[in-house]
Amino acid sequence: MNKFFKDMPEVKYEGPNSKNPFSYKFYDAEKIIDGKTMEEHLKFAMSWWHTLTAVGTDPFGEATMDRTYGTEDPMLRAKARVDAGFEFMTKMGIKYFCFHDVDIAPVGETFEETKKNLQEIVAYIKSKMEGTDIKLLWGTANCFGDPRYMHGAGTSCRADSFAHAAAQIKNAIDATVELGGTGYVFWGGREGYETLLNTRMDFELDNMARLMKMAVKYGRSKGFKGDFYIEPKPKEPTKHQYDYDTSTVLAFLRKYDLMDDFKLNIEANHATLAGHTFNHDLAMARINGVLGSVDANQGDAHLGWDTDQFPTDVKDATLAMLEIIKAGGFTNGGLNFDAKVRRPSFTYEDIVYGYISGMDTFALGLIKAYELIEDGRIEEFVEQRYSSYKDGIGKKIVEDNTSLEELEKYVLEGKDNSEVESGRQEYLENILNQIIYK
Amino acid sequence: MNKFFKDMPEVKYEGPNSKNPFSYKFYDAEKIIDGKTMEEHLKFAMSWWHTLTAVGTDPFGEATMDRTYGTEDPMLRAKARVDAGFEFMTKMGIKYFCFHDVDIAPVGETFEETKKNLQEIVAYIKSKMEGTDIKLLWGTANCFGDPRYMHGAGTSCRADSFAHAAAQIKNAIDATVELGGTGYVFWGGREGYETLLNTRMDFELDNMARLMKMAVKYGRSKGFKGDFYIEPKPKEPTKHQYDYDTSTVLAFLRKYDLMDDFKLNIEANHATLAGHTFNHDLAMARINGVLGSVDANQGDAHLGWDTDQFPTDVKDATLAMLEIIKAGGFTNGGLNFDAKVRRPSFTYEDIVYGYISGMDTFALGLIKAYELIEDGRIEEFVEQRYSSYKDGIGKKIVEDNTSLEELEKYVLEGKDNSEVESGRQEYLENILNQIIYK
Amino acid sequence: MNKFFKDMPEVKYEGPNSKNPFSYKFYDAEKIIDGKTMEEHLKFAMSWWHTLTAVGTDPFGEATMDRTYGTEDPMLRAKARVDAGFEFMTKMGIKYFCFHDVDIAPVGETFEETKKNLQEIVAYIKSKMEGTDIKLLWGTANCFGDPRYMHGAGTSCRADSFAHAAAQIKNAIDATVELGGTGYVFWGGREGYETLLNTRMDFELDNMARLMKMAVKYGRSKGFKGDFYIEPKPKEPTKHQYDYDTSTVLAFLRKYDLMDDFKLNIEANHATLAGHTFNHDLAMARINGVLGSVDANQGDAHLGWDTDQFPTDVKDATLAMLEIIKAGGFTNGGLNFDAKVRRPSFTYEDIVYGYISGMDTFALGLIKAYELIEDGRIEEFVEQRYSSYKDGIGKKIVEDNTSLEELEKYVLEGKDNSEVESGRQEYLENILNQIIYK
Amino acid sequence: MNKFFKDMPEVKYEGPNSKNPFSYKFYDAEKIIDGKTMEEHLKFAMSWWHTLTAVGTDPFGEATMDRTYGTEDPMLRAKARVDAGFEFMTKMGIKYFCFHDVDIAPVGETFEETKKNLQEIVAYIKSKMEGTDIKLLWGTANCFGDPRYMHGAGTSCRADSFAHAAAQIKNAIDATVELGGTGYVFWGGREGYETLLNTRMDFELDNMARLMKMAVKYGRSKGFKGDFYIEPKPKEPTKHQYDYDTSTVLAFLRKYDLMDDFKLNIEANHATLAGHTFNHDLAMARINGVLGSVDANQGDAHLGWDTDQFPTDVKDATLAMLEIIKAGGFTNGGLNFDAKVRRPSFTYEDIVYGYISGMDTFALGLIKAYELIEDGRIEEFVEQRYSSYKDGIGKKIVEDNTSLEELEKYVLEGKDNSEVESGRQEYLENILNQIIYK
Repeated sequence: MNKFFKDMPEVKYEGPNSKNPFSYKFYDAEKIIDGKTMEEHLKFAMSWWHTLTAVGTDPFGEATMDRTYGTEDPMLRAKARVDAGFEFMTKMGIKYFCFHDVDIAPVGETFEETKKNLQEIVAYIKSKMEGTDIKLLWGTANCFGDPRYMHGAGTSCRADSFAHAAAQIKNAIDATVELGGTGYVFWGGREGYETLLNTRMDFELDNMARLMKMAVKYGRSKGFKGDFYIEPKPKEPTKHQYDYDTSTVLAFLRKYDLMDDFKLNIEANHATLAGHTFNHDLAMARINGVLGSVDANQGDAHLGWDTDQFPTDVKDATLAMLEIIKAGGFTNGGLNFDAKVRRPSFTYEDIVYGYISGMDTFALGLIKAYELIEDGRIEEFVEQRYSSYKDGIGKKIVEDNTSLEELEKYVLEGKDNSEVESGRQEYLENILNQIIYK
Repeated sequence: MNKFFKDMPEVKYEGPNSKNPFSYKFYDAEKIIDGKTMEEHLKFAMSWWHTLTAVGTDPFGEATMDRTYGTEDPMLRAKARVDAGFEFMTKMGIKYFCFHDVDIAPVGETFEETKKNLQEIVAYIKSKMEGTDIKLLWGTANCFGDPRYMHGAGTSCRADSFAHAAAQIKNAIDATVELGGTGYVFWGGREGYETLLNTRMDFELDNMARLMKMAVKYGRSKGFKGDFYIEPKPKEPTKHQYDYDTSTVLAFLRKYDLMDDFKLNIEANHATLAGHTFNHDLAMARINGVLGSVDANQGDAHLGWDTDQFPTDVKDATLAMLEIIKAGGFTNGGLNFDAKVRRPSFTYEDIVYGYISGMDTFALGLIKAYELIEDGRIEEFVEQRYSSYKDGIGKKIVEDNTSLEELEKYVLEGKDNSEVESGRQEYLENILNQIIYK
Repeated sequence: MNKFFKDMPEVKYEGPNSKNPFSYKFYDAEKIIDGKTMEEHLKFAMSWWHTLTAVGTDPFGEATMDRTYGTEDPMLRAKARVDAGFEFMTKMGIKYFCFHDVDIAPVGETFEETKKNLQEIVAYIKSKMEGTDIKLLWGTANCFGDPRYMHGAGTSCRADSFAHAAAQIKNAIDATVELGGTGYVFWGGREGYETLLNTRMDFELDNMARLMKMAVKYGRSKGFKGDFYIEPKPKEPTKHQYDYDTSTVLAFLRKYDLMDDFKLNIEANHATLAGHTFNHDLAMARINGVLGSVDANQGDAHLGWDTDQFPTDVKDATLAMLEIIKAGGFTNGGLNFDAKVRRPSFTYEDIVYGYISGMDTFALGLIKAYELIEDGRIEEFVEQRYSSYKDGIGKKIVEDNTSLEELEKYVLEGKDNSEVESGRQEYLENILNQIIYK
Repeated sequence: MNKFFKDMPEVKYEGPNSKNPFSYKFYDAEKIIDGKTMEEHLKFAMSWWHTLTAVGTDPFGEATMDRTYGTEDPMLRAKARVDAGFEFMTKMGIKYFCFHDVDIAPVGETFEETKKNLQEIVAYIKSKMEGTDIKLLWGTANCFGDPRYMHGAGTSCRADSFAHAAAQIKNAIDATVELGGTGYVFWGGREGYETLLNTRMDFELDNMARLMKMAVKYGRSKGFKGDFYIEPKPKEPTKHQYDYDTSTVLAFLRKYDLMDDFKLNIEANHATLAGHTFNHDLAMARINGVLGSVDANQGDAHLGWDTDQFPTDVKDATLAMLEIIKAGGFTNGGLNFDAKVRRPSFTYEDIVYGYISGMDTFALGLIKAYELIEDGRIEEFVEQRYSSYKDGIGKKIVEDNTSLEELEKYVLEGKDNSEVESGRQEYLENILNQIIYK
């Protein structure tokens, strides 16, 4: 196990008929689609935590995975982890990564030591990046695991926890800038409440906005030109999290005037936990101009927690890619695999299989999304469906050029047609299936 | 059955030991709490549709309830229904009611006839109101039942459906103004989508805002000084409704600059369908200044649809009343029982029992909420819990007078205390139970 | 609309590249797979109720669909409906149908008239069947829609409701026998409770078993050699239904000694409402020898009611067909589309599109299930996974030839190996995707 | 923290008006109800794991609780934990406890050492029990936490994991017998699957039955006269657990002929995760004669995992106690608090508050259940509701003395009455509330 990815072969595109489990069947990085390579479209990223750090514990079970990298020394292990990560990315052909501060560098006895550790590992990562085309997609700070954040970080009832979060975020922004990251993420794992009985929701939300404004101010002062992201999640670990879903975050961003600097990092499994389809939350972000980056994974429709499975549903991936394409594709963002192998899949091969499943699924999703666009039948139907707003009373409506009185008159005069056309859902679903499974 | 509420006795407060099922055990209308009567605090309203119109059908079953009022003639039946409603409210001691246009007056062959029917019944209701202290809490238009709204009303893909909704809303606003209503509700039962494959969400939301702006303009021109309400619901009948929950509606109101005229009508069972507790959604509305009115009912935690049961959970009612009190009590709004008896509870007595359960539950909730406030232990704990923001670094944070750099310095200098206090959830829950069950 | 399926073209296999929406892209009835035609494998059935009778009402909306067949006379309409049904089946190439008594014949003023109506329509259907290869898959009685069943049928608190259900079931069994049906279904839409406060669950379950035993006795006396089915569903319309899921039904069948005559009719959307995947419930039925027939549809993971959508998920269909194949294929049962077009899909074309989507999805599922079997990698992995039970201590365990004492001794002597192999879920999922999407 | 419960005062009954947070407001141990003390009725038990061992970790957070008992030495800590546990039970007035093997004694390097550790701690516990009236309610083995059980214990694909589980269970039965326990629990935390793709459900279930039969044989040979329990849970940690709910376990027990030795240990939060109310699963166990013991806790209706909260809902507790009373009260079983304080409630006081909330809630539930019985209105209504089965056709039905033919004749002759009585749910709910809140 110590050798970890040392024995791992390079994973390459071999097409759908290959029986080599260490090959891509659908992801062909160099393939050109609509003027860009698949690699450029998809911008796959490795998640440091699930891939290199997590050990397979769950609420009822001990670790099943060895992620010691052959050493007990925290800093040596952190560096061995960097080596393993770069080896993995290189062999997989993955060009981006994402991290929390505590994933990459050990927490020290003092905050000063923690900071030093982080800076040392950031420097090491930077040196590893040189000469490669591997980039940092985004960084973040883990302000949820430490007991000091049990009541929240930016929304803590304790000023000292807020201060500590602020300090951590400052250093994580520094690390992100140092490594050339194009995004910085806020995931509020403890920004919420366990019970409203002890909670001042208005006070806590005001403070959360304060922390974000300070982060923007600091980041911009350091030359950070990327996007700040909020990553919505409705619950888990807390009973209720403030960043419930895309719409809730939009209400927050609008209220506190943060729309200029923030976009969203949408996670599939978080959307489904909030009662939405993945592509619903992507669409909601898109039409509000805040579709930033994506945490690509999938949940289990019958489990009420964040299972963070590698995505395997091609239809979901197709509809997701359709939204991303409609949004103009990724600029600063990308597809980060916030996904983990199942607890009984504890070997390094399983990680490789997991990534292959996720990458092949989104590669197919990209291909199918473009086939749908090219096919044109769905778009044509939709265009026709809304055509009544192109002239007459419809035109007046969308041009804000009418009133209840005028519309009543129109109806009283019997000008409205009560005949409605079919929504043709089954027809459209057939087209979708025809393209996905042909 | 034709006699309906004719044989029904008056329902009066008889205290918890009464074995008379036609009595209030906890609701004592005249009892003074904090300077107002219980009746003034609670502002109970009868829902026309569930109480006088609905017949007990469900997706797998026929009508079980006779609501014909002894006549087949639509207008005679509509008037008999008014009589029954006022008899019911009078005997129950309920002082408010709510309606949709189609609940009170039959739809005619033409829109002109529909309008005439509505005006005639409104006049009849108005004559019944004279000499009583019964008032209209709010009115609304049913823009979801007719096939023309199958794709939405304000969000329909068809301009003519939009126009028809606008005409209906105009008349429903007129009816509301005529009857002195202090609220007008938008519940978007079809404002959403069945499938994103045929839907332009941005276009539809823009149109929904247009319709609401026209309604505000028209209502204000007619002297309507009450509140416009949006009533959130996440789904059912459509797969996804745009007014998902309080936060989603806030995002919409802020985006389209509608915060001045709109508040929310929060329904318990809609909040729970969206994954929230009832009091969460009330609190979210309160801290944003949009807590307008309440649809008091309850759902079933194991059923995924809107069961619209009469509320029986006193703890939920207590926490709800606590939010309403914190918001300053109702002004234009009140507690409307958007609740129905179960399908096998088909007699008129069952309706009475249902209202008694709802009214007694909220009466107890009001009493217990004030007992909690008077007790003071919970509030005292919460006050202490946030006290670190009253001076030092905490004060600087809430006064927007610090930065990531300063906060990092504070932590680097070891000034932050990592000791956290307990959230004391179990202690607070014990106090709550002690007060509710004593 | 009166012409209904008159203008409908025949739907034939044209392959995945056809742009003709009235064609099968994947269902090739005559194609031979493993010695049987696709038609023989799949045994598709038309559901009378969703296809010919239902009108698109929902709890908040009126009918959108015209299913009057051009006449107001109940018996003429019933016959016109038969004509439409046979025209539809013929043009679709569907060879089976399923019905409730009330779907095919109108309820009369008296039970005698109802019986006469049913017999007349059964005779008419029988005459239509002659000369065709269209068969009855199963029949059933609707003992849930009428108000007399509001408290249940076999589990009613009223003996007269029980008696009426028994009478209806007798006639429905007669109809099934007369039409050569190979199955008779019990779906207990009201066999459950709204509240335990008024319910004797033990008494009601005993009665349910009594009714089923009478039905078996009667049916066998009439020469019925087919299967009796229970169709599990956890809830809706009632708060809790006794036939919750496959396992619950198994407990019931074993307790009341009904395993010899009963199998299960598993519905996808009912399994998912109970918290299971479709193939889980099929597998559970299979390993207990009670996999009888299937109601093929799909639900919406975010909606808590029975949406009865046409199945479109090929992976689900593949896993379902794998279970059916493992069970030896259908004998008396088949794939009944208990599925309906969405409310805004109100035209006859939409019904055709719906069936095409369901049939193509299961056709692909069948093809992919056999490809998986032929590929063999998954089965090979599973075989190896359990190999430790083939000899040594494992063999003793499965041969019931050991004890806690012996097994403890084995462990105390250090003979057990604590090394575990990976479950390889991601590898297996990759194989599945590779086969489904190639 | 090292002193733990040393400074804790004794908790005594002080009545509902006491403001002492360290007092029972409703639980009066010596109070006689229906001939038994509250203590005898309720048989409260301390759960070793949540109370003495768990440290507040969650999937996103580190430990918040110090449960080291001032020593790093595993055996010294285990003994200190025993001391703390007995001090806690004594001060709380709790007379029963429950444990897993690994909660009480540390796992050793070898199984022999593990066994020795367990025996040593069991002896220590036994010595502590002497002279007190504290008893063991039930014991169990943790066959889910160790990586060797990642694929299951009794249902593992590996014979060696099965063997190891068997060895652990043998020793846990020995410990249970040694300490005079009256119950032995099987909770199958890993007895299920992550994916059906790698699972042979029939093989695994057969093996699970084999393990249970060996356990019964061994236990009985050692003189164990108590009950074996299966504790149902639908999911978590695995994707699907075989002991899904009460009905599923009944199907298993009947299939494998285990009804003579097994009863159920019903946990509230497990029932609700399976889609049932707590009292539903209790009632289902009761009417099948398998209501053995109860894990008293509660979940959160909006969270999809086992939150194991202390029970605070008096209505739920009332309905639960009603079922337990109907079942004749506890014999070998009792009310075990499988409940934990929230992660931010990390002090020893919080544990005390948690237990107080649970004990007061069930004490009130007991009182209210007897008040309901004494009141008699609900039972009277139910008796009347089923009265039609006491004579006439109803009597023939329940005496198995009729047939479909006779029942049809009865209906054809118009003897059945189609008039149905109301189910009176709202009336019954009012009585329930009147009694709970008076």
